[in-house]
Amino acid sequence: MRAAFMYKAGDVRVEDTPDPVVKQPTDAVVRVVRSCVCGSDLHPYHSLSAADGPAPMGHEFLGVVEELGSDVSGLRRGDLVVSPFAFADNTCEYCREGLHTSCPKGGWYGVGEVGGAQAEAVRVPQAQGTLVKLPSDVDSALLPSLLTLADVYGTGYHAAKQAHVRPGDAVTVIGDGAVGLLAVLSAKQLGAERIILMGRHKDRTDLGRYFGATDVIPERGEEGIAKVRDLTGGHGTRAVLEAVGHMPAYEMAVGAVRPGGVISRVGVPQYEDAPVGFGSLFGPNVTLTGGPAPVRAYIDELLPAVLDGTVEPGRVFDRTVSLEEVPQGYRAMDRREALKVLVAP
Amino acid sequence: MRAAFMYKAGDVRVEDTPDPVVKQPTDAVVRVVRSCVCGSDLHPYHSLSAADGPAPMGHEFLGVVEELGSDVSGLRRGDLVVSPFAFADNTCEYCREGLHTSCPKGGWYGVGEVGGAQAEAVRVPQAQGTLVKLPSDVDSALLPSLLTLADVYGTGYHAAKQAHVRPGDAVTVIGDGAVGLLAVLSAKQLGAERIILMGRHKDRTDLGRYFGATDVIPERGEEGIAKVRDLTGGHGTRAVLEAVGHMPAYEMAVGAVRPGGVISRVGVPQYEDAPVGFGSLFGPNVTLTGGPAPVRAYIDELLPAVLDGTVEPGRVFDRTVSLEEVPQGYRAMDRREALKVLVAP
Repeated sequence: MRAAFMYKAGDVRVEDTPDPVVKQPTDAVVRVVRSCVCGSDLHPYHSLSAADGPAPMGHEFLGVVEELGSDVSGLRRGDLVVSPFAFADNTCEYCREGLHTSCPKGGWYGVGEVGGAQAEAVRVPQAQGTLVKLPSDVDSALLPSLLTLADVYGTGYHAAKQAHVRPGDAVTVIGDGAVGLLAVLSAKQLGAERIILMGRHKDRTDLGRYFGATDVIPERGEEGIAKVRDLTGGHGTRAVLEAVGHMPAYEMAVGAVRPGGVISRVGVPQYEDAPVGFGSLFGPNVTLTGGPAPVRAYIDELLPAVLDGTVEPGRVFDRTVSLEEVPQGYRAMDRREALKVLVAP
Repeated sequence: MRAAFMYKAGDVRVEDTPDPVVKQPTDAVVRVVRSCVCGSDLHPYHSLSAADGPAPMGHEFLGVVEELGSDVSGLRRGDLVVSPFAFADNTCEYCREGLHTSCPKGGWYGVGEVGGAQAEAVRVPQAQGTLVKLPSDVDSALLPSLLTLADVYGTGYHAAKQAHVRPGDAVTVIGDGAVGLLAVLSAKQLGAERIILMGRHKDRTDLGRYFGATDVIPERGEEGIAKVRDLTGGHGTRAVLEAVGHMPAYEMAVGAVRPGGVISRVGVPQYEDAPVGFGSLFGPNVTLTGGPAPVRAYIDELLPAVLDGTVEPGRVFDRTVSLEEVPQGYRAMDRREALKVLVAP
């Protein structure tokens, strides 16, 4: 089959690779119907060394079950499914708590012997716990929104849930990528009254307003922080959802959060150390939370409003490419020419 | 009057200084009945530069109201009161939320024009919001326990509350100082079933067992982390209460916390940057919380069990000195000869 591999920073190629097969009785093989390029894929696109490549890419997909291991029940060949970006058994104590990303039997697409989803097909470990069946007669217009359940919608929702966003709340969202915009949507769904979106790409922040942002701040750094404080009587907002992962975004979060508030991070941190002492988090009793989203835990909750069209998270996709065009998709996202690129193999 | 000042690291002196007077109509002057030396006083005792001294010391006290500003109601001369270590108006939006340490009119003893409590008397700003009246006929045997409401008991309780300790919980407490031991007591009161105390001073950890610790781990660093993991099936505990403030304690907290769990810090951080990236907090969705405790918010809740003797947090005091002997009190705590030193002027 054909699949995308990243050889090093800036170098993505689509190549022939062996078809995936069931290796474990808990596996499935799923033929990909839709996949996409993630903002987090841009991190290695900027930094992957040739020694760490070639890496299979892609971790978000909708597909049709093609083959099932002998231990997988509840699924049949031909089922349309969505896969969370992390696979998990959905039965261990972590999964039962909704923390599927810490499942001891879980893991990540594109790591070790598991391939990526920017491909014609994928082997899915722990298929029974991982894959969620969708209605087989679903309108194809819904596919983009359903695909966001694999990662970006659930990740934005995780940011808002971890921050305990509640009715009437004031929330700042840092980042106008797909996750940031869907964090806006999630905060809105959880009842936030004021949602300040920090981002400077007007087409994106316009979509953010559509999803529920009440204010948009294009400024960054100290200037951006001052704007948030201006809008909030000097206090900052109780919740700050950080959907970027770079240190300047962390610093803006620290500057924009109200004393006693919460910084909830879902942008994969591109740093290990950060300020947490008296002058940043400790003095004002600020809580730092977040992590890789256990999106499996949220699919059942988020699916109905997607299926009935109440929400349209799939609006984050503004370009579609074929599998062969995936390298162009990376380039378009890297150059900010596209917000999020859908892959229709 | 006489009062203690720290001139530089290791150099505490008791000297003559002007008597405090009411300066603002919201002030009170309180004659100190009991004060004490705090574990956090040891941080400047190790590091204060001569350029930053002399600093008035002490922030925990019980006392008798001696003078009241014209705007203070609800208190009378002669009232026995306890003061939280941070003063606050108790009416602003932060105070109403229970975050008195972020009160815009609040502040700290020993900073600016406000004196310390290791003294014969103290000026208390925002007296009406700050001071809590105690029964005038209270048994003097209860004074040590009542004094802990000024800081160490409320601070240990804050650690446990911020970590949302709940019935049946597993909790690790790092540090066998007064705050750590009262974090053990607090976790026990909130229903924790397993309380692992990390500390290596047997007399202190024995007191920790009295307060509710089920396990004691004297080892530190990787060895200590391995012991916590041994005791918890490899997982770590859902809550870790960090009552030290040094980087090795932070690192132990990261090692001892269960994925999805909470590190709650009340030891004043002696560092600004710390690991928070994928390999520490983010990957396992660990929450970092805590800060200076708004002990005023907890006094009403904690007072009844102190008054009726159900709990005896005052057991953390194992030495009493006169005001003139305060320098010896610092030395004894620094050498770990005393756990916590009571000052009876």
